[in-house]
Amino acid sequence: MAGVVARTYHPRAMPAQRTRKIAVLHTLLRAGDVRRLRRSLLRQDDVQIASQLDNLDVEDRLRVLQLLPADRRPEVLEAMRYEAAAVLVAQLAPEEAANLLDDMDADDAVDILGRVEEERLQQILGRLDQDDANELEDLLAYDENTAGGMMSPQYFRVLPSATVGDGLMMIQDEEEPPETAFYMYVVDVDDRLIGVCSLRMLVISRPSQKIRDIMERDLVKVTADTDQEDVAEIVSRYDLVALPVVDEYDVMLGVIDVDDVVDVIREEATEDILKMAGAGEDLAESRTFAGSFRVRWRWLLAAAAGGTTAALSLSGFDSALASVPALAFFMPVVAGMGGNVGMQSSTIVVRGLAVGFVEASRVRRLVVREVSLGASLGLLYGLLIAGASVWVGDGEQPWRLGTVVMLGTAGSMTIASAVGTCTPLVLDRFNVDPAVATGPFVTTSVDVIGLIFYFWLATVLMGV
Amino acid sequence: MAGVVARTYHPRAMPAQRTRKIAVLHTLLRAGDVRRLRRSLLRQDDVQIASQLDNLDVEDRLRVLQLLPADRRPEVLEAMRYEAAAVLVAQLAPEEAANLLDDMDADDAVDILGRVEEERLQQILGRLDQDDANELEDLLAYDENTAGGMMSPQYFRVLPSATVGDGLMMIQDEEEPPETAFYMYVVDVDDRLIGVCSLRMLVISRPSQKIRDIMERDLVKVTADTDQEDVAEIVSRYDLVALPVVDEYDVMLGVIDVDDVVDVIREEATEDILKMAGAGEDLAESRTFAGSFRVRWRWLLAAAAGGTTAALSLSGFDSALASVPALAFFMPVVAGMGGNVGMQSSTIVVRGLAVGFVEASRVRRLVVREVSLGASLGLLYGLLIAGASVWVGDGEQPWRLGTVVMLGTAGSMTIASAVGTCTPLVLDRFNVDPAVATGPFVTTSVDVIGLIFYFWLATVLMGV
Repeated sequence: MAGVVARTYHPRAMPAQRTRKIAVLHTLLRAGDVRRLRRSLLRQDDVQIASQLDNLDVEDRLRVLQLLPADRRPEVLEAMRYEAAAVLVAQLAPEEAANLLDDMDADDAVDILGRVEEERLQQILGRLDQDDANELEDLLAYDENTAGGMMSPQYFRVLPSATVGDGLMMIQDEEEPPETAFYMYVVDVDDRLIGVCSLRMLVISRPSQKIRDIMERDLVKVTADTDQEDVAEIVSRYDLVALPVVDEYDVMLGVIDVDDVVDVIREEATEDILKMAGAGEDLAESRTFAGSFRVRWRWLLAAAAGGTTAALSLSGFDSALASVPALAFFMPVVAGMGGNVGMQSSTIVVRGLAVGFVEASRVRRLVVREVSLGASLGLLYGLLIAGASVWVGDGEQPWRLGTVVMLGTAGSMTIASAVGTCTPLVLDRFNVDPAVATGPFVTTSVDVIGLIFYFWLATVLMGV
Repeated sequence: MAGVVARTYHPRAMPAQRTRKIAVLHTLLRAGDVRRLRRSLLRQDDVQIASQLDNLDVEDRLRVLQLLPADRRPEVLEAMRYEAAAVLVAQLAPEEAANLLDDMDADDAVDILGRVEEERLQQILGRLDQDDANELEDLLAYDENTAGGMMSPQYFRVLPSATVGDGLMMIQDEEEPPETAFYMYVVDVDDRLIGVCSLRMLVISRPSQKIRDIMERDLVKVTADTDQEDVAEIVSRYDLVALPVVDEYDVMLGVIDVDDVVDVIREEATEDILKMAGAGEDLAESRTFAGSFRVRWRWLLAAAAGGTTAALSLSGFDSALASVPALAFFMPVVAGMGGNVGMQSSTIVVRGLAVGFVEASRVRRLVVREVSLGASLGLLYGLLIAGASVWVGDGEQPWRLGTVVMLGTAGSMTIASAVGTCTPLVLDRFNVDPAVATGPFVTTSVDVIGLIFYFWLATVLMGV
């Protein structure tokens, strides 16, 4: 990719918000106006086109791609979302796909190819130069959610015995420089990473100086199996622009550029948000009816099973209900308040764990605070809602109904805070992603436990 | 900040995950072991210390800061979360705070000072050199959530008539180079941004060449009032390492470095997640009981009001309940299934809007898909849950109860999908952050509407 300077961006003509709203390509495609479509493509930069392609059907993506000049196609493909680009690549003739991928940075090519099905992948790799195909296959072997899956094998490498002049010459001679070539990595004869030298350092040093005398020896690096969330955390904490990846013997494997980390952070946040609501892991899954149905029905199963269990458990309280029907009216608010406060607690814990805000050593304090919060909020709202219940309420025992609603709400909210706080903590302790089960699990278990408590209170206090 | 190479990071000794779990400082502080504390500080790098300070009480933060060598203090402060650093700075003597801030990058200093209360802020600024104080005050005038609030006023600037040699000399002569000095910005005599030149470009060009002949004229830039979410979107889409900020006349104001964007993206994701659950906007708010209570009780008010309204509305159906108490058992599952599917829809739409996945021009298709999904899932689960209701059910009219539960579930889930999809779309249309009201609003309105529909069905179909 040509880097920061290769594209025009006029902020007044196109704030990011606007881009999304004016889907020019979509409109022109519908009108079938090829001439205006071509003109519109000329006026837009690669990123503007890519962000519209992301939201088109695959046939439309193909049509637009064919209309683009050949030299812009790899750039546009690189700027697309990986999933969208992969769907497009899978539709191309293997020969054509190989040509496009050949002109891309290896790390971006791998991110796309990793989403293409095996048979098609092999056809595409077969059309590539043997060396390039091997390089891509090596990269594809890494889990895409690890440092290995994010790194690029292209970077500047230099021996400590070289001079600053040698280093500068290397940069001057490189025809296809790495994506963001701001650092030169210093390796020993066994390819072990021993230091780093910034381009700025080279520029301010005398050409005759040895690299070993100007290099920085203390550096931040990760092993290839480091999880991408940890990579994001490290890059964010250390304010890095590039992060070298090594194997267990410190042998240099590649470099992660910050722009890939930016994508990962956004992707991870989306994944967490969707998981918490039980809506899958990827927005792309929700693009089609079938995809959405497949992802969501499973999540709802837990809620349905829990709700049905609740219904069966509550059926034991039918005599209480028969004698005080008003009890039923307050079921939704008792359960709902619990569900809401439980979601608050679990969200704070899940996100806190994700960004390092919750520390395992201080968990007890967190649980105590959340539960006492739930209880306090429960008392506050219990009183308010009980007021309403006395007003509506049961002719014979208005104050007793009020007491049941108040204690029921307070109890349900206390229980919900405890469940909402502890569930993600326990999942995290057992190395299960806390975002996964939090939402549906908390809501459903809070419904069941809160309502049983509520009816139990009613039988005890109202003697029904 | 010294940049990428100034810190040691040993991946095996400290994956990010581990850091959080081993709160060494906290343990040593509790033990009051100053000697081991000092040794531990020597062994850790600035970022490791900062990430622990973030999670300490303000008194403990102060104690650790005093134990650090004076030259490490600004670095550690810079690596802390801004809120945590601001609390710490506010506790220091103004003189001391000014000394620390003086050694920091202006953009980081501003991010911290913007969170310090006015009176204390003025005291600190008063202790600074007049020029520095003016620079900081200018930056503080920008909204912290805009490009202006994120930019740094330190960057390399060059005239187009200068030579490559002049440019290289400028870099060599600069004693305090900007944070990430990979680009040189080309401005005309009126300080208007006309091009950019990468350090690499300088290195590969002949020293006698004019900057105007090698500079890139097409560049991505934003105005100072651009929202930080749009900045993140642009940096992510264009794979930028630095983004210049200009005023309406294209006059250069500053540069946003990618590492600040990384922080913004994480922060925005946290904000969205918390808002959706009605748990505030910032994890720091939930650190104390009082702070948490203040943020959360307001969000719960909507749920309580909605729930109470539901209770009052349902009280009209007391005769139905009295004759078929089993209707009540299925209230939680009917409402809960609606709430769950509604949260799925609204989450997909809210996140889709945030990352540009939802396009306004294709909203109708989205609504149709979500509502038909809700209806399909509703029929599926309606049938399953109705099966359970027939089994539990009412002795006299088991099939009628089943029909009510089935249609009630399907209806509630269809309504919930519609509300969950349309609420964020409408809020977005009126430029209200769709994440704000989505969670509580959707859950509560779905409860009310879904249950009224359920009881209405019961009165019609069961003749009660």
